[in-house]
Amino acid sequence: MGGTERDRRVLVASNRGPVSFTRGDDGRLTAKRGGGGMVSGLAQLAEKEDMLWVCAALSDGDRQAARSADDGMIASGAEPGDSAVKMLDIPQSVFQRAYNAVANSTLWFVHHMLYDTPNRPSFGPGFQREWEAFRAYNEAFAVALAQAAGHEGGVVRAVIQDYHLCLAPRMLSKLAPHVQIAHFSHTPWAPPDYYRLLPDEVRREVLAGILGADHAGFLSERWADAFLDCCEAFLDCEVDRERGLVRYDGHVASIGVHPLGVDADQLRERAAEQDVRIRMAELAERVGGCKLIVRVDRTELSKNIVRGLEAYRELLRSRPEWHGRVMQLALAYPSRHDLPEYREYTAAVQRLARQIEDEFAVPGWDPLILQVHDDYARSLAALRLADVLLVNPIRDGMNLVAKEGPILSDHGCAVVLSTEAGAVAELGGQALLVNPFDVSQTAQALHEALAMDPGERARRSAALAAAAGAMPPARWFADQLDALER
Amino acid sequence: MGGTERDRRVLVASNRGPVSFTRGDDGRLTAKRGGGGMVSGLAQLAEKEDMLWVCAALSDGDRQAARSADDGMIASGAEPGDSAVKMLDIPQSVFQRAYNAVANSTLWFVHHMLYDTPNRPSFGPGFQREWEAFRAYNEAFAVALAQAAGHEGGVVRAVIQDYHLCLAPRMLSKLAPHVQIAHFSHTPWAPPDYYRLLPDEVRREVLAGILGADHAGFLSERWADAFLDCCEAFLDCEVDRERGLVRYDGHVASIGVHPLGVDADQLRERAAEQDVRIRMAELAERVGGCKLIVRVDRTELSKNIVRGLEAYRELLRSRPEWHGRVMQLALAYPSRHDLPEYREYTAAVQRLARQIEDEFAVPGWDPLILQVHDDYARSLAALRLADVLLVNPIRDGMNLVAKEGPILSDHGCAVVLSTEAGAVAELGGQALLVNPFDVSQTAQALHEALAMDPGERARRSAALAAAAGAMPPARWFADQLDALER
Repeated sequence: MGGTERDRRVLVASNRGPVSFTRGDDGRLTAKRGGGGMVSGLAQLAEKEDMLWVCAALSDGDRQAARSADDGMIASGAEPGDSAVKMLDIPQSVFQRAYNAVANSTLWFVHHMLYDTPNRPSFGPGFQREWEAFRAYNEAFAVALAQAAGHEGGVVRAVIQDYHLCLAPRMLSKLAPHVQIAHFSHTPWAPPDYYRLLPDEVRREVLAGILGADHAGFLSERWADAFLDCCEAFLDCEVDRERGLVRYDGHVASIGVHPLGVDADQLRERAAEQDVRIRMAELAERVGGCKLIVRVDRTELSKNIVRGLEAYRELLRSRPEWHGRVMQLALAYPSRHDLPEYREYTAAVQRLARQIEDEFAVPGWDPLILQVHDDYARSLAALRLADVLLVNPIRDGMNLVAKEGPILSDHGCAVVLSTEAGAVAELGGQALLVNPFDVSQTAQALHEALAMDPGERARRSAALAAAAGAMPPARWFADQLDALER
Repeated sequence: MGGTERDRRVLVASNRGPVSFTRGDDGRLTAKRGGGGMVSGLAQLAEKEDMLWVCAALSDGDRQAARSADDGMIASGAEPGDSAVKMLDIPQSVFQRAYNAVANSTLWFVHHMLYDTPNRPSFGPGFQREWEAFRAYNEAFAVALAQAAGHEGGVVRAVIQDYHLCLAPRMLSKLAPHVQIAHFSHTPWAPPDYYRLLPDEVRREVLAGILGADHAGFLSERWADAFLDCCEAFLDCEVDRERGLVRYDGHVASIGVHPLGVDADQLRERAAEQDVRIRMAELAERVGGCKLIVRVDRTELSKNIVRGLEAYRELLRSRPEWHGRVMQLALAYPSRHDLPEYREYTAAVQRLARQIEDEFAVPGWDPLILQVHDDYARSLAALRLADVLLVNPIRDGMNLVAKEGPILSDHGCAVVLSTEAGAVAELGGQALLVNPFDVSQTAQALHEALAMDPGERARRSAALAAAAGAMPPARWFADQLDALER
């Protein structure tokens, strides 16, 4: 840990860490820093604080790195300011059950209200094993954090990320009572009538797990309120909504809203690089004189890509004046393809895209380009060129694409935004809002967005960009540390 | 209308009426009185009040009867005390869209939270036509009720039933302001986060439609509260929760809870008839010395028959001591087979039943009898013989089977009851409660119910029967009329 002061330690915990390792043909490991906004935001803080990031080893390379490092400690050191990293080599069978079966197929589905309820979920003996694994996975993080916190005096703060690690705060508070603990939920939170789907014990453990933290953060008031509704419905606790406090099991947790935004300068810098400019030129040639609707998503059940395409089809059917004058570029990157629902959903997206091509394409005009291979530079290029950005999730913790679009847009883009995205709290005033289940309304909003006067579009886009950049990751993180001080 | 007093008229409106007609080979119509508790409950009132029942013509015979009757008025007259009936001959295309597409595939799905949300619903131009039909269907009822109410003085009360007719109260209030209007919801009510799936305009029209009534009734506090939550979230109205009042558009509606129960005497009488006794003898022979678990449901997506069978399978797997000592009789009657989801669900039920047979049946012991053909007398026989009644809906307005079981049971039955049924408000104290998504918990509850000491079982069953008979249909209906007076 070198020369940094030990009396201001910050521990970060998340499933995915800031670095990943791949093993080359020669058997040597290469480190690659993750691209997300949180990673670069925290890098700024790591320069000032004594920071350790605890994460799971995900790839074979990660596991090898974790095993060969002393006590799993890796000085990622790829760039100045990178934090130290501790990778947990959690047994594969435990990890799969905890990550796929519980986190991504259960908690994610509950918070995003994705279940086909007559048929799923069904909590039988298999789930009991999975839940045990989820406990063990959370316990591994709690133990690692407690070890890293040590027993000396001084202030140690641990900031635990997301639904994967919802049990860890309480576990850590038992192991290391002197650590100040924050938890942050990047997902929506389910209303009580949907949260009830979970087995009774799971309901209580998840809520109690998060309330083991001193501060529990959410992306919007709506999700924080839903969390409090669930606390009231399912735990024997006292909720003080006025002050945002929950007293449970002799401990008080504060509840806060920290609407994660985008580091605008950094994003614009990245989008000015050569690889992005090359893709812009390629795209501009394909688009020609058409107006461009862009969407950028992982192919995630909550992202609502199929209904987005249905809305585009309805636009083309009901308003033929747009034929030959509009294109949609749908960037739908692979996600969670180990879950069958996701493979089926990707197939449905591709099927509908082909139908739209069949129905409308003519020589010289492709109404729709669907790209399913990840290419970050192309995403940035698309966002720079977009006239209209379509963000229509059925439910979304925040949706950062809705914030990145206006920041990157070269001439200002109109944003068609779902009321069910957390981002609506900040962007709602200037975006065109749609009910994501209402295809006709979405088609109408696309028409209005395309037809919007350029002056109004630029004004709205600038206001959206300002709102989107209001809380960049570094400030968002610092805010949570501040909340721990109070 | 004969000699009854015109100053105390009661109008009832529901999709399905108290009588239906079939056309014989000779072309003549035969009237058959409906079997539901509401019909016989209202018959008692019809003896005292000047009552007219407005309903839709459903069968070809109904349509013929409606057309040949003077202004659609039919004196059903099958039994003394039957009310006069007016059948509405609504055009087939309007009826299909209103009843199947909107009422049963949309409103029912929303209130029971049945959608596979990544894929359904999708509100496009087709839905707009369907919604127009739903308005027309409701308007036809409102017009018929207004005509029946007439313009004379005196008190006219209209009691409008269920989600099919949620728009009619407001329509009727415009057409005939002197009529006192009650609406009753027999379904659950969705929480705001799920009700939001509906198109914006539909959300508001449904809430405003019901609030056009002077009194809006629900089966439990939970559904009434959810209705008020939706009013607050989606309408510009004032909600007074203390007094149960909503002021909207210059009009105040009172909100009430009327937990429909069973007419115990009448039900026991029916279950003592010859046809029931014959089936009891047949069943008793098949069951032999086994303990008998019974379930009786329409094969409705909300009834959760598949998970119920999964729980039974888990019981047999985890507790082999029950092999040869328990049987389940699952009566799962056809429902809504014009909707593909329902046909698929029925197939899933049958598939799982065969798997259970394959896994466990041995010569001399059938662990499971699944019957999919409707036979009311057999249902009553099964309820009389049941040791355990399984009622595990994922969401249910009330569930009258849970109330009928303890009333009919010959030696007292233990009830395994979903927390998501409205009946839990009255039966929760004596039933064994389960989370309907938790198959393991349901299996455990079945075991406890089977193993319950006969004395305790009889005590609990008697208490359940008393609660179940507390508000028979006649009192339930009179309660709503009383609420209109206040």
